[in-house]
Amino acid sequence: MADKLTPRSEDYSKWYNELVQRAELADYSPVRGSMVIRPYGYALWENVQAGLDRRFKATGHQNAYFPLLIPMSFLQKEKEHVEGFSPELAVVTHAGGELLEEPLVVRPTSETIIGYMYAQWIKSYRDLPVLINCWNNVVRWELRTRLFLRTAEFLWQEGHTAHATAEEAEAETIQMLNVYADFAINDAAIPVIKGRKSDSEKFAGAVRSYTIEAMMGDKKALQSGTSHFLGQNFAKAFDIKFLSKNNELEFAWTTSWGLSTRMIGGIIMVHGDDQGLKLPPKLAPIQAVIVPIFKNDDEKAKVMPVVEQLRQQLVETVRVKVDDREETPGFKFHDWELRGVPLRIEVGPKDVEKGSVVFARRDRPGKEGKSFVPQAGIAEAARSVLATIQTDMLKRATEFRETNTHEPKSYDEFKSIIEDGFARAWWCGERQCEAEIKEETKATTRCIPLDQPGGSGVCIHCGKPAQEVAIFAKAY
Amino acid sequence: MADKLTPRSEDYSKWYNELVQRAELADYSPVRGSMVIRPYGYALWENVQAGLDRRFKATGHQNAYFPLLIPMSFLQKEKEHVEGFSPELAVVTHAGGELLEEPLVVRPTSETIIGYMYAQWIKSYRDLPVLINCWNNVVRWELRTRLFLRTAEFLWQEGHTAHATAEEAEAETIQMLNVYADFAINDAAIPVIKGRKSDSEKFAGAVRSYTIEAMMGDKKALQSGTSHFLGQNFAKAFDIKFLSKNNELEFAWTTSWGLSTRMIGGIIMVHGDDQGLKLPPKLAPIQAVIVPIFKNDDEKAKVMPVVEQLRQQLVETVRVKVDDREETPGFKFHDWELRGVPLRIEVGPKDVEKGSVVFARRDRPGKEGKSFVPQAGIAEAARSVLATIQTDMLKRATEFRETNTHEPKSYDEFKSIIEDGFARAWWCGERQCEAEIKEETKATTRCIPLDQPGGSGVCIHCGKPAQEVAIFAKAY
Repeated sequence: MADKLTPRSEDYSKWYNELVQRAELADYSPVRGSMVIRPYGYALWENVQAGLDRRFKATGHQNAYFPLLIPMSFLQKEKEHVEGFSPELAVVTHAGGELLEEPLVVRPTSETIIGYMYAQWIKSYRDLPVLINCWNNVVRWELRTRLFLRTAEFLWQEGHTAHATAEEAEAETIQMLNVYADFAINDAAIPVIKGRKSDSEKFAGAVRSYTIEAMMGDKKALQSGTSHFLGQNFAKAFDIKFLSKNNELEFAWTTSWGLSTRMIGGIIMVHGDDQGLKLPPKLAPIQAVIVPIFKNDDEKAKVMPVVEQLRQQLVETVRVKVDDREETPGFKFHDWELRGVPLRIEVGPKDVEKGSVVFARRDRPGKEGKSFVPQAGIAEAARSVLATIQTDMLKRATEFRETNTHEPKSYDEFKSIIEDGFARAWWCGERQCEAEIKEETKATTRCIPLDQPGGSGVCIHCGKPAQEVAIFAKAY
Repeated sequence: MADKLTPRSEDYSKWYNELVQRAELADYSPVRGSMVIRPYGYALWENVQAGLDRRFKATGHQNAYFPLLIPMSFLQKEKEHVEGFSPELAVVTHAGGELLEEPLVVRPTSETIIGYMYAQWIKSYRDLPVLINCWNNVVRWELRTRLFLRTAEFLWQEGHTAHATAEEAEAETIQMLNVYADFAINDAAIPVIKGRKSDSEKFAGAVRSYTIEAMMGDKKALQSGTSHFLGQNFAKAFDIKFLSKNNELEFAWTTSWGLSTRMIGGIIMVHGDDQGLKLPPKLAPIQAVIVPIFKNDDEKAKVMPVVEQLRQQLVETVRVKVDDREETPGFKFHDWELRGVPLRIEVGPKDVEKGSVVFARRDRPGKEGKSFVPQAGIAEAARSVLATIQTDMLKRATEFRETNTHEPKSYDEFKSIIEDGFARAWWCGERQCEAEIKEETKATTRCIPLDQPGGSGVCIHCGKPAQEVAIFAKAY
C-alpha cells in the first residue's frame, strides 16, 4: 500500500486495476473471471441500487425473483437468443449426486424463464401490463475479464415487462432508457448519450435495443445500460397470449432492460484521477470524512470532543465518518483521496479556537478546493458543498466528452478522431459497412443518438446516402 | 380464484400451498424444486431484508459479495462440511462450450470461498474483526421441496465473521442469534426459542450451532434462523492466520449465521387462518387498504375525493393502497383478507357525511375488530391501531405456543405430547438416545434452550442423568 498508484496517464489499464484493488472496491477471486465485491464497493453498489430502485418503483414497477437455473431447452426456443448466448453458458449437468435428464444453464439473462411464467400468469388484457424488475446475479463465461467491466458473474437488475400493444411496449422501452440516463446523469454524474444500437450490436432476440453510452477518462466508450424492445419474439417463443378487449387471442409485446455492476467501472473511469477514486456525492458510501489533527494528548483532548460534536451535527443528513485511526493526517488524507470521499473535514487545535473547520474538496485538489467553514451550521454547509461537487463533477465530465467528440469530414479524419475520442458521423446503417469500419479501425458504432441533427448526409465510410448520424468509438 | 380456500383445520398442508399461490406470494417454476417469488412475496422479503439489514449495520456489519461458483476442491477442505453438503450439490461441469478442468459447485453456503478470501485479507490482529454479511442465492438440491420452506434454490443472507479470540467469536455468534430473535419477535411477531442445536443437528463444520425455533399453526416446529460458532475449523482448512499482538502467528476464529426466505413460510404458518394470510404490520407490503363503497355514480363522486384525501394523509407514514378496481366491496374485502393486509379502511357515503371511516382489523374478524374513526387525524389513528395489531399478533402467537408446550413426566406422556405440540423435557444429550427418540416418535431435538431451569433431572427417554432441558417436536 506504500507504493504510489500508477498514474492514470502512464498506464490507464494498470491504473484502473490497481485502483479497484487498493481502494478495496473489489478483488480477484480463485474462480476464473469471477470477482469479489468488497464492502466499500458493495456499499457503492447498494447506493446505485437505491437510486435505480426508487426510480423503478416510481414508474410502477415491482421486484420479483425467478430461478437461477434454466432448462437448456428454454434457451433454444428463441433462435437469435440461443445463438447469442450459447458460447457463454455455464451448464449444470449433475445435481444431488445424479446426472440430470436435461442440463440446466446458470442464467445469463432471464427472458426465457420469465417468458414461461408470464405465459402462465397472463390470460386477459386485464392482466396487462406486467411490470417486473429483478435484482440478481447472472453468469456469462467471458474469456477476457476485467474487474467490474466484464466478469464471468455479475450483479445487475433485469426488468421484464409485457404489454397489450407495440406502442405501449416501445414507450416502456424508451421510458426505462430515460430512467437510466436520469440516474447516470444526476446520481453518477456521468453524461450519457441515449441512442439506438445498430442491428449487429443489439441484444440477441430484440427487435430494437437502446443504450446509454458514456465516455471514459481514456476517451473510450462504455455501454452503461440497455433497454430492449423485444416485439413479440419471446411472446411467440413462450406462448404469452392474452384475450384482448375485442375478445381476440393476441400475443403480448415484451421489453427487457438491464444495468449492472459494470456501472461502477464507469464511475471509476469517468471521474478517477492519479490520486484515486472521485465518487459522486449522491453515490459515495462515505460523503464526508472528518480528520482530527493533533500533535499531542493535550491537543487531542481539545480536538476530539469537537470532532464528535460535529459528527453528531452531520450524521442526520450526511454519510459521515470520523477517521480516528492512529496514523498521521498525511496518511489519512492520501487514504481518503484514494477512496474518493468527496469532502474531507479537517479539525485541528487552531480550528477549535476559531470555531471553524477546513473543508477540502476531493474534486478540486490543492488550495482552490479548500475553505474555512464555521462549525455552527456545518451540516447545511456540508450539504451545500456536496451538491456543488455533484454538479461540478457532471459539468467537468460533460466538458471532457464534448472536447473529445468530433465530427469528421473525411474517413481519414474519422480514423484519426477515433484514436483519441468519439466520432459523430453520418452513417449508411448497413451491416457490411459497419463491419469494415470495425475491421479497419477497431471502432464500433456505439449508438445512433435519439437526438439527431435532421436532414441527411453521406456515409463517412462508404459514401452512400445516410439518414442518421452515429457515434463511433473504441469501446470496453 | 372463486373457489374457497381449503380450511386450515381441514388440511394444513393443502391450505398452505393454496394460500401461497392464491395470495400471489410465490409460484411453482418449471425447474424442479425452484420457485418463483412473485411481487407480493418479494415485497414481503424486501421488508424482511430491511429489518435485518438495519440490525446488521447497527451491530457493525457491512455487506459484500462473493462468487456463486465455487471450485469443488474447496468444499473438500473441511471434512464435516463436505460430508454434510455433498448430497445436495448442483455441479457446473461445462462452461463457455468446454469441459471445465475442475467442476464448480453452485454455492450451497459460502464458508469455503469466503475462508479462502479471508486468508488473503487477514494478516494482522489489526485486520480483525472482519464483520461481513452477504445477501444472495444458494442452491441445495433437496428431494422433497415446499414453497418457501424447502426449495432447491433460496434467497438468504449469510454472515461471515473472523475474530482474534474464541471469546469474541462466541460473543458474535450469540449476538447474531439475539439479532434474529429480536427481528422475529418484534418485526415478524413470531415468538422464538433461542437455543443450541444438538451435535447431530448442528451445521456441517461448526463447533456449536444456535437456532431460533418457532411453533407453526399446526404445532410443528420451524427452524427460523441459525448462528454458528465455527471455532478454528475453517481457519485451519483455509489457512486464515494473523499475527497477534504478541507477534505470534495464530489461526482466526470464525462464525457464520443465516436467515432465509424460509422465514416467509414461518410468517404464513404462524399467523394465517382460514381466510388467508395475516401479515404483521411491520413487514406487510401494504399496511392499510382503503376500500371505497358506493352504489352509483353520485355516491362515487362523493366518496372518491375523500378517499384520495385520506390516502394523502396516510401515505407519508403508512404503506397504504386504494383499491379502486371495478369489483364489489365484498370481493375486495375477501381479496385483502386473503392477502393479509392488517388494516382495512372502509369509506362509504354515510362515512363521508359523518366525517368518519370504518377501521376493520384483519387480526380480529367480525364486529370486535371494527371501529368508527374520525377522518381528521386518520394517520395517527392508523399508526396506533397498526401498533396494537403488531403487539396483539405476537401475544396471540405466544399464548398459542405456551398452551401447546408441555413438560412430560414420562416417555409415554412425551409421545402423546409431541403428536400435538412441543415437549420440554430433560435430556441426556447423547446422540444414540436422540436417534432412538426420532426413530420411535419422528420428533427431533429442536434445541437446548439458552434459558434453562437449572438443576438436573433424568432423561425423558433413557432415564440417565440429564443436565439440560431440550425442546422436542416434529419439524418442517
